[in-house]
Amino acid sequence: MPGSILGNKLRVSTWGESHGMGIGVVIDGCPAGLALTETDIQAYLDRRKPGQSKFSTPRREDDAVTIQSGVFEGKTTGTPISLAVYNKNQRSADYSEIASYYRPGHADYTFDAKYGFRDYRGGGRSSGRETIGRVAAGAVAAKLLQTLGVRFLTYTKSIGPVAISGEQFDAAQISQNALYMPDAKAAGQAAQYLEDCMKNRDSSGGVVECIIKGVPAGIGEPVFDKLDARLAGAIFSIGAVKGFEIGDGFRAAYANGSENNDAFYYKEDGTVAKKTNHAGGILGGISDGTDIVFRAAFKPTPSISAAQETVNKNGETISVQIGGRHDPVIVPRAVVVVEAMAALTIADLMLENMSARTDAIWDFYKNK
Amino acid sequence: MPGSILGNKLRVSTWGESHGMGIGVVIDGCPAGLALTETDIQAYLDRRKPGQSKFSTPRREDDAVTIQSGVFEGKTTGTPISLAVYNKNQRSADYSEIASYYRPGHADYTFDAKYGFRDYRGGGRSSGRETIGRVAAGAVAAKLLQTLGVRFLTYTKSIGPVAISGEQFDAAQISQNALYMPDAKAAGQAAQYLEDCMKNRDSSGGVVECIIKGVPAGIGEPVFDKLDARLAGAIFSIGAVKGFEIGDGFRAAYANGSENNDAFYYKEDGTVAKKTNHAGGILGGISDGTDIVFRAAFKPTPSISAAQETVNKNGETISVQIGGRHDPVIVPRAVVVVEAMAALTIADLMLENMSARTDAIWDFYKNK
Amino acid sequence: MPGSILGNKLRVSTWGESHGMGIGVVIDGCPAGLALTETDIQAYLDRRKPGQSKFSTPRREDDAVTIQSGVFEGKTTGTPISLAVYNKNQRSADYSEIASYYRPGHADYTFDAKYGFRDYRGGGRSSGRETIGRVAAGAVAAKLLQTLGVRFLTYTKSIGPVAISGEQFDAAQISQNALYMPDAKAAGQAAQYLEDCMKNRDSSGGVVECIIKGVPAGIGEPVFDKLDARLAGAIFSIGAVKGFEIGDGFRAAYANGSENNDAFYYKEDGTVAKKTNHAGGILGGISDGTDIVFRAAFKPTPSISAAQETVNKNGETISVQIGGRHDPVIVPRAVVVVEAMAALTIADLMLENMSARTDAIWDFYKNK
Amino acid sequence: MPGSILGNKLRVSTWGESHGMGIGVVIDGCPAGLALTETDIQAYLDRRKPGQSKFSTPRREDDAVTIQSGVFEGKTTGTPISLAVYNKNQRSADYSEIASYYRPGHADYTFDAKYGFRDYRGGGRSSGRETIGRVAAGAVAAKLLQTLGVRFLTYTKSIGPVAISGEQFDAAQISQNALYMPDAKAAGQAAQYLEDCMKNRDSSGGVVECIIKGVPAGIGEPVFDKLDARLAGAIFSIGAVKGFEIGDGFRAAYANGSENNDAFYYKEDGTVAKKTNHAGGILGGISDGTDIVFRAAFKPTPSISAAQETVNKNGETISVQIGGRHDPVIVPRAVVVVEAMAALTIADLMLENMSARTDAIWDFYKNK
Repeated sequence: MPGSILGNKLRVSTWGESHGMGIGVVIDGCPAGLALTETDIQAYLDRRKPGQSKFSTPRREDDAVTIQSGVFEGKTTGTPISLAVYNKNQRSADYSEIASYYRPGHADYTFDAKYGFRDYRGGGRSSGRETIGRVAAGAVAAKLLQTLGVRFLTYTKSIGPVAISGEQFDAAQISQNALYMPDAKAAGQAAQYLEDCMKNRDSSGGVVECIIKGVPAGIGEPVFDKLDARLAGAIFSIGAVKGFEIGDGFRAAYANGSENNDAFYYKEDGTVAKKTNHAGGILGGISDGTDIVFRAAFKPTPSISAAQETVNKNGETISVQIGGRHDPVIVPRAVVVVEAMAALTIADLMLENMSARTDAIWDFYKNK
Repeated sequence: MPGSILGNKLRVSTWGESHGMGIGVVIDGCPAGLALTETDIQAYLDRRKPGQSKFSTPRREDDAVTIQSGVFEGKTTGTPISLAVYNKNQRSADYSEIASYYRPGHADYTFDAKYGFRDYRGGGRSSGRETIGRVAAGAVAAKLLQTLGVRFLTYTKSIGPVAISGEQFDAAQISQNALYMPDAKAAGQAAQYLEDCMKNRDSSGGVVECIIKGVPAGIGEPVFDKLDARLAGAIFSIGAVKGFEIGDGFRAAYANGSENNDAFYYKEDGTVAKKTNHAGGILGGISDGTDIVFRAAFKPTPSISAAQETVNKNGETISVQIGGRHDPVIVPRAVVVVEAMAALTIADLMLENMSARTDAIWDFYKNK
Repeated sequence: MPGSILGNKLRVSTWGESHGMGIGVVIDGCPAGLALTETDIQAYLDRRKPGQSKFSTPRREDDAVTIQSGVFEGKTTGTPISLAVYNKNQRSADYSEIASYYRPGHADYTFDAKYGFRDYRGGGRSSGRETIGRVAAGAVAAKLLQTLGVRFLTYTKSIGPVAISGEQFDAAQISQNALYMPDAKAAGQAAQYLEDCMKNRDSSGGVVECIIKGVPAGIGEPVFDKLDARLAGAIFSIGAVKGFEIGDGFRAAYANGSENNDAFYYKEDGTVAKKTNHAGGILGGISDGTDIVFRAAFKPTPSISAAQETVNKNGETISVQIGGRHDPVIVPRAVVVVEAMAALTIADLMLENMSARTDAIWDFYKNK
Repeated sequence: MPGSILGNKLRVSTWGESHGMGIGVVIDGCPAGLALTETDIQAYLDRRKPGQSKFSTPRREDDAVTIQSGVFEGKTTGTPISLAVYNKNQRSADYSEIASYYRPGHADYTFDAKYGFRDYRGGGRSSGRETIGRVAAGAVAAKLLQTLGVRFLTYTKSIGPVAISGEQFDAAQISQNALYMPDAKAAGQAAQYLEDCMKNRDSSGGVVECIIKGVPAGIGEPVFDKLDARLAGAIFSIGAVKGFEIGDGFRAAYANGSENNDAFYYKEDGTVAKKTNHAGGILGGISDGTDIVFRAAFKPTPSISAAQETVNKNGETISVQIGGRHDPVIVPRAVVVVEAMAALTIADLMLENMSARTDAIWDFYKNK
């Protein structure tokens, strides 16, 4: 199973390279009857666009999406939805230098080790532009989930040393600053920190947090397709992610059971609820009906303009300075990628769950 | 795709409940010609056995494995290997009380939410005993990997506040103490900490670390089946895991690119190497030929004998005290489970990788 | 993807060899809440038992099935169902002769070509006993389908030159004769034909037909997972099948469109029906709500006691006479195997179909 | 698993409708280093083009393919290959009439039954144009197989009553006549027969035969992924296929074992061969190194201009005459589709087979 296909009931197949003809994705298994337009998808793509602040690459990329199949008279037909974003300017820049050596922190060396050669133009398949396919597909999943009452709140939790704490949280702020932080003051501090990084020809890492509201209890398949396992795999498939945690995450390793266990109680309406949410909304790999909360750690942008040591193909250890302008931090543009991957995962498992019980199957086929 | 099947080329299908007839696994895709005996597998199972120290449940479970198919004249035949561990003592204990309420921190509530009812005896399918299937299959994967020069070093990194640091590391110690820690002194401190937990009717979390040596460069499939993504999904499918990180992990989110990038250089024998390993042996989702290093955070054992609040099926919020004896920490017994899941993942992707290049395919079919 | 796992939503994983410890299957994805006992499964297994007539091998094999997991208090739990049939008498007969040469019409040569060696005892994994796993799993699928109103009528259509025609059809007869033919007279003629085959140290082929009633319209997934494509693959995976056809099958290749098209009309109750069923109940790969009708051609039993030419491992072309007693025809015992494979396929696709439309998804999650 | 994705190691994901923007396919898992150009693919697409004779639709469709990703400097990179054929003339013809009723023999009714509505323009996703994606992907598989010495001979075996017999076979003729028949005289008779069909406002069925040379022994995975099972499923997924058989096929059901078994012998060069090939090159689901031979039966084109009875959405049973010009037979244009599906199946299983033995794995990783 080659690696560019994800999901089981809602299956996405992505393609494309940074400097090729374009990037696209085929979504197979989107149920029929969902109202879907290019605008729905473009809204997601625009959130990952570069050039929105001085901390993202100023190259103007329109990244306009086209729906090529699977939608008829404004609705999905149940057959594959092909989405494509064609590259406007495939500049035939001179990449011969990059072709000759392996950039530290990038996939240049490992692609060559695996395949014997690589498309070295702008990182080829391992470029961040690959995420366009994920985001376009994720927008469709999110549209489906929206009709089911599932909502995402995804934002920058920290950039370098500047982190958001619970008290500062202001959801409305997220879309108000270029760093997608839920706190204006922190966003300002982070901006200052990134300025310093750039001055130092350096880059910064950061953390993205995602809260998913409205997922009903019962989603996730034991044993290997647990909801948290599938989220972990999906989020870790995003380039530059080095850590993933759910609920209290690594802090749980330092806690006692009496602190970490979430007490159940009955709400006034008779539904089961939890007094705390250390678990992050998942117990035994299955959603418990409360907010799902997870975080992903992103490493600093590997492309920095400071001098670095590396090797070239002539057998020489050399010093390189990577030219061009690069985002000093990946996190803000990755926020929507994280959300897209979460949406694809939740949607897939919600469709999967529909046949968990015989009574639901009987209902479906009798009511039909 | 129901959740009890994992892998693509090396595919495992597990079954069984805590207090049912037994636990087993079918391995499909193990290549023919691998020498394999029950002893190979039993050695792994024995590492997860309870009753080896006062910190694990004293129930004596022999957990003797039987190879039921797929091995002929001491070698694997290429057809499915069925492994089973039958329960010796299916005590018909009285579980009616547990059946009536949802234990905090367990999957009782979510299984009921999903399936409408559950096998409540000892946790049923969501019990830690489910990992027997994983470990048995992992032992086969590890045997295969051993013939390819891949070796695992897996151990307890921390228990509660007691953590191993780099200086203390003594690999030989790992199998010398019941907590599988690579430092005798830390193991002693952790033991003391666990004694305190038990006195307080409480439990502790901890961290497992795994170092994988000898994986060649080139393993892992971009985009969604990256080696780190697949490891993340596999490890996170183990019950009680709440966090996963590779290389510097979450620390990378606080680092600068100039620190985090690993410089390449040529070794005297002409092979490419890295001066540091912040990446944890994986670049762009593909192994780079250096040690793969990852950590998993385990939450504290949810079964504690202190009083806890929860709900029962009569619509009442109640206080419960979970009887029986339970491990005050999951981590030591989880060490081999983590190793097993890593072995299954690496083996699967090493088989997958064999068709990455046409020249390898030509070689294979011409030399045949 | 090794070959012993089938299905997507209802997934079966089979294991075992003819003369190993036993044969088994793990069913993952069976919905929770289905009443299931060993008797349900045994009834299917008994239909494939040898020794029921003089045309099947007289070896007494009890083939008693055990449910090892996945059922609690008489109902499926939604987690894997492990079924096993252990071999009673693993006679350590002398197979050294068979080990030395390749039986014509068997998989001996091809298994060696693929795996380098083989379990030669009674055919090992390629023995007809492998179908025990299929039939046991198929019984579970059939039980589920029964609750949905789907029923199977499967029988011997022809043995050698003795074929059933439409006029002779008497469903009640099928279980009344050892050859599972729906016509007593034809069964008698076929029995005589088989006696002659045995006298001539020869064997006979035949055809199995299956009619599936009660499958609602809409089952099957375009493009590659069409209902007929999935049935074709499932039935052709049974050893000895050499042909498969649906509805008019090969006769359609000789027909004109005006004959072959089935006219639609409205029944009095307002439902859509067809005047004829040349299509065999499937249009465009999706069930149309009418009877699904297909046939499978089985080759003659390859084990015959007449002298045959073959090769041994010493590089010699030799003449062999295969000893032991063998069924002179595969078909009667294959009837239930065909039904089992059809049941697994239909059940899998009926579960798959539940998420084809957004309105069904909305219903499911709102009504929950 | 929705239905538009096929294969495991070589995975294709198709999209597109008859009158939408276009038709395409993403191929994931094509090994790196294969020389590939658009010309390679176009050559296959041209074989399914309409308008090449009076028996195929005169609409001029250029069907020019574009490689959108996965090829760099003339070679495959190992990452997804996106191929697309855009429709030149999306005529907004008036399909409102067709939208209102269900054409006999088509998927109109079943798509509506499944999805609640359908793209009715020219059959939408169930149109024969869907096969463009299969053929484009098949061309890539065939190119890969060609480097491994695998060759295909695919042709029209019969049209209506006009069939090719062994004596008439002239491979050179296949590309010399518009019907792709290996006999000029038969092609002439078939042409006359089709003329008659058209005069009668009727259509004809036919049979395609495929011979695959050069597949080494050992390809195919027992139990469910047998080579014949996978071929059966792949070929039966082509619209209008109603029957499939391998080797002697249905004739084997009427044969005796002594006739049907193929005797093995040693050739002078010491390799194992068979005196006959009743098996069609596959034993126990695994290739035996001889020619693979199979046939597919196609039903007559369902679109005929004669009057037919059907139902409309107003609850009325009506008479319709389907306008436009339609091929009187599907078979000649389906020849390349059959070959494409066979190529995809063989290539997938040849990649799969590479990890069947430990010694091959050791070789691969040691020689690397």
